[in-house]
Amino acid sequence: MPVNFTPSLPEQLLPIRGMTLGITEAGIKKLGRRDLLVIALDEGTKVAGVFTQNSFCAAPVIVAREHLSKLDAKSSIRALIVNTGNANAGTGEEGIAHARITCAELARLMGCASQQVLPFSTGVIMEPLPLEKIVEALPAAVANLSADNWFAASQAIMTTDIVPKAVSKQVSLDGTTVTITGIAKGSGMIHPNMATMLGYIGTDAVVSQHLLEEIVRHAANNSFNRITVDGDISTNDAFILIGTGHAGNPAITEKTDAAFATLQDAVTEVAVQLAQSIVRDGEGATKFITVRVEGGKTPDECSKVAYAIAHSPLVKTAFFASDPNLGRILAAIGYAGIEGLDVSRLQLYLDDVLVAENGGRAHGYREQDGQRVMKQSEITVRVVLNRGMASTTIWTCDLSYDYVKINADYRS
Amino acid sequence: MPVNFTPSLPEQLLPIRGMTLGITEAGIKKLGRRDLLVIALDEGTKVAGVFTQNSFCAAPVIVAREHLSKLDAKSSIRALIVNTGNANAGTGEEGIAHARITCAELARLMGCASQQVLPFSTGVIMEPLPLEKIVEALPAAVANLSADNWFAASQAIMTTDIVPKAVSKQVSLDGTTVTITGIAKGSGMIHPNMATMLGYIGTDAVVSQHLLEEIVRHAANNSFNRITVDGDISTNDAFILIGTGHAGNPAITEKTDAAFATLQDAVTEVAVQLAQSIVRDGEGATKFITVRVEGGKTPDECSKVAYAIAHSPLVKTAFFASDPNLGRILAAIGYAGIEGLDVSRLQLYLDDVLVAENGGRAHGYREQDGQRVMKQSEITVRVVLNRGMASTTIWTCDLSYDYVKINADYRS
Repeated sequence: MPVNFTPSLPEQLLPIRGMTLGITEAGIKKLGRRDLLVIALDEGTKVAGVFTQNSFCAAPVIVAREHLSKLDAKSSIRALIVNTGNANAGTGEEGIAHARITCAELARLMGCASQQVLPFSTGVIMEPLPLEKIVEALPAAVANLSADNWFAASQAIMTTDIVPKAVSKQVSLDGTTVTITGIAKGSGMIHPNMATMLGYIGTDAVVSQHLLEEIVRHAANNSFNRITVDGDISTNDAFILIGTGHAGNPAITEKTDAAFATLQDAVTEVAVQLAQSIVRDGEGATKFITVRVEGGKTPDECSKVAYAIAHSPLVKTAFFASDPNLGRILAAIGYAGIEGLDVSRLQLYLDDVLVAENGGRAHGYREQDGQRVMKQSEITVRVVLNRGMASTTIWTCDLSYDYVKINADYRS
Repeated sequence: MPVNFTPSLPEQLLPIRGMTLGITEAGIKKLGRRDLLVIALDEGTKVAGVFTQNSFCAAPVIVAREHLSKLDAKSSIRALIVNTGNANAGTGEEGIAHARITCAELARLMGCASQQVLPFSTGVIMEPLPLEKIVEALPAAVANLSADNWFAASQAIMTTDIVPKAVSKQVSLDGTTVTITGIAKGSGMIHPNMATMLGYIGTDAVVSQHLLEEIVRHAANNSFNRITVDGDISTNDAFILIGTGHAGNPAITEKTDAAFATLQDAVTEVAVQLAQSIVRDGEGATKFITVRVEGGKTPDECSKVAYAIAHSPLVKTAFFASDPNLGRILAAIGYAGIEGLDVSRLQLYLDDVLVAENGGRAHGYREQDGQRVMKQSEITVRVVLNRGMASTTIWTCDLSYDYVKINADYRS
């Protein structure tokens, strides 16, 4: 079960004016599973996205990037189509053709141009997209469109996820209440530069296209790009931010505008909650681990240290075993590749317990104190490098029997 | 059980004139386990070594490096001391003092100087070295010194290893038969730049110090630095090559000497066999995987691709499950970080089966063919990048339930 995860209730998810969501069963996954989502957007809605950095990116990623890059003042994105069960990745030219056809079919039903539709797929890779099933199911998804379908949408995009991930938040911008609602999926293959992770956040705030793009990058860098389950990077990741502009707040067009910071922080907070939910629901996770590295020369070296810890199978199995194996953490710090790192100067903490310093076990450290922390379901590993002012925080989970089970048996 | 591993029999291990080995029980590990090894070397023996690249290197590594760097024409290394059960890593200044004391004690017994002794430790990290036990046991180890103890030595240095690893080989240099015998230990925390891995190879060949150092680097780069079990890099790794010079072959002093290449190849072959044994005995391994990447622009980019595949937990669990999940392999290639990689130009093979090309499944590929290969206990993954002439080969294993079990429960 996910670690300390409290799912949002359907009634806690606030609709975003200008967005409707339709869900149906296309029969890609097993019978009775709603596996197709359409999100319809009012004309004039602004959309910005960030995508996987994997060179082997999936067909829908190629097409979605292309459609976003061709946006102009006269056209806007009118719909998103998301299927689970098949990632349409590693499918070559045929896969791209399939993604284009799904866009064209949905465009026909919505009365817009193909380029106004963004396609997304998640699931098994290297299998041909079951195009006919999707095309046949599209009218039912469109007929199901409703502003109140966020919870059902969060369920529809799940793959190996155990729990649906959805969050709403409201903030006041210049006296106007704006709403932010987001959904995400992902539980394995999670790593910076995205993951097998899809995230969609909508807001009714009035904000320029340029600043929406700024916000989506900022939010991704501080949320989805800071989580790791297994270090693998998916071919299909996408995080999309949608601004319908229906809230009626004074339009945000400058970064110096105080409302910009408020909106950016609120969107980022929603993204962080969704990203942390993905780690809490990490494949086989039994612990939620925060890795904080401070006192580095640059954020980049802090990240290297943090990911060396977070990716080490030895560290991750020690967390699973509730074993305060300081040596494994120190060894991971040591091979992070930080030039001139003086290991005798760093401090290592498990929560508030100083466990290592001066190149060895801290004076006064008692194993029972480390053990107490390691037995918790939420643990913060804090490394103080004492060589600069930079810091970074990432989130990860432990490595359990169930991770192997899920990834060895997932087809059955 | 190790994958397709045929251990050498004690009688297959050939003594090296000028080297004797003594084993005893120091009580560091559980009762009845011989955990202390002394290797004595004739005066004038040449020794060269490579060590872990981890910034957090263990006390014995620091001391061994120092002693090797202080060698001069008048003194030579006379003894090695290796203990299991405790790695003397993350033990700060006290750990270094402990390593020095063990050298001094052995030197006293052997009638040489402290700096003529190299210390090695492997086992649990962050625990103080049980110095008294080691010092008390040293006389028994010295009393046990014998040229025929290679097999017992290979057993004494084991930690989580299931099988002892030892190989002998003979080659003819200018008509003189020279012998090479090596032992190694390691089964987890294995990665390039060494691993929790100790390797000792001795030869009676007559070869200059300079060329012995050349050979140890070459052999390491083509063997121990090409294996990975879990991507972790240990604090204690060391690979030592010993040349006693007793064989009577014409001294090898130039790289252009044909005998140099013969000796280097033979030492490398012994190192490769030992390194592969480590992977075959990888923690929880059920498959032995060769990853070969060809057609890269540089060996470095071939290595990046090979390690992205070999480190991916998703790929490793797919091997465990005998699942020809091509997508996971292609995704790993895609995130290896190769600039300008055109994924539509590469070919992917499982053994002789072409499984992917043109950015997708290969024409004519049938899943049953991939499945047939994946069910084998030895599998070669071959990636042809089609962008240059460089290539590299590494060896790894799958990720199984037992990996998690061994690393979560190792203390019990």
